[in-house]
Amino acid sequence: MMYDIKAIGRVHSGLKTLQDCPRQEDEGAPEASVEIFSEYLDAASDIKPGDNLVLMTWLHQSDRCTLKTHPRNDPDTPLTGIFSTRSPDRPNPIGLHEVVVRSAEGSSFTVFSLEVLDGTPIIDIKSSK
Amino acid sequence: MMYDIKAIGRVHSGLKTLQDCPRQEDEGAPEASVEIFSEYLDAASDIKPGDNLVLMTWLHQSDRCTLKTHPRNDPDTPLTGIFSTRSPDRPNPIGLHEVVVRSAEGSSFTVFSLEVLDGTPIIDIKSSK
Repeated sequence: MMYDIKAIGRVHSGLKTLQDCPRQEDEGAPEASVEIFSEYLDAASDIKPGDNLVLMTWLHQSDRCTLKTHPRNDPDTPLTGIFSTRSPDRPNPIGLHEVVVRSAEGSSFTVFSLEVLDGTPIIDIKSSK
Repeated sequence: MMYDIKAIGRVHSGLKTLQDCPRQEDEGAPEASVEIFSEYLDAASDIKPGDNLVLMTWLHQSDRCTLKTHPRNDPDTPLTGIFSTRSPDRPNPIGLHEVVVRSAEGSSFTVFSLEVLDGTPIIDIKSSK
């Protein structure tokens, strides 16, 4: 079973290479800007500063064939099934990010903090519970 | 930009119709079984009872054209952009579920609790933070 997933927006960030990216957003990730594509602006019209959101990204530089990994790329950790980790390398490389909205204007809003590369596609946004 | 997403497993649940499904897993959702498809078993090999996992599902009966909704289908709530809600109707209908593993055997494990329909495709599994 296969499904098609559409980018609904894109990340603008100072993180330009994978080497720049912290492993998790609580490890020194910066503020970033989220651009919503025009056809989805109505869906984002209630996003405002202070909102707690869950962003889902498509980690387009990931390896989709990886099934096991050493967590945190540390060779001293046991080889572990990907579904028991947060590794970006996985069959469907969906990134999951809890963020807080800092400002919102027009088709963009800024969030703190986000550990993904500049240009990463955004595939979904939800309110945090 | 479009991407292809592959089902890595499937939910088996007593919830057979959308009318059976609670809106959130903390609203009376039952235990359910997660079947992992054979080509992804290595990725699930470390899942064990007591694990806290994030399941992502593909909510295949959702309306992908919805951009605004009345939260919780209550007409008295203000019409709200989908990205500020948890509605299943959205451009990419990805369900996000925090579950605890009850038991694991072979290609399946049971979780508590999960509010999605029997047969719902699973697209990703991550450890909770």
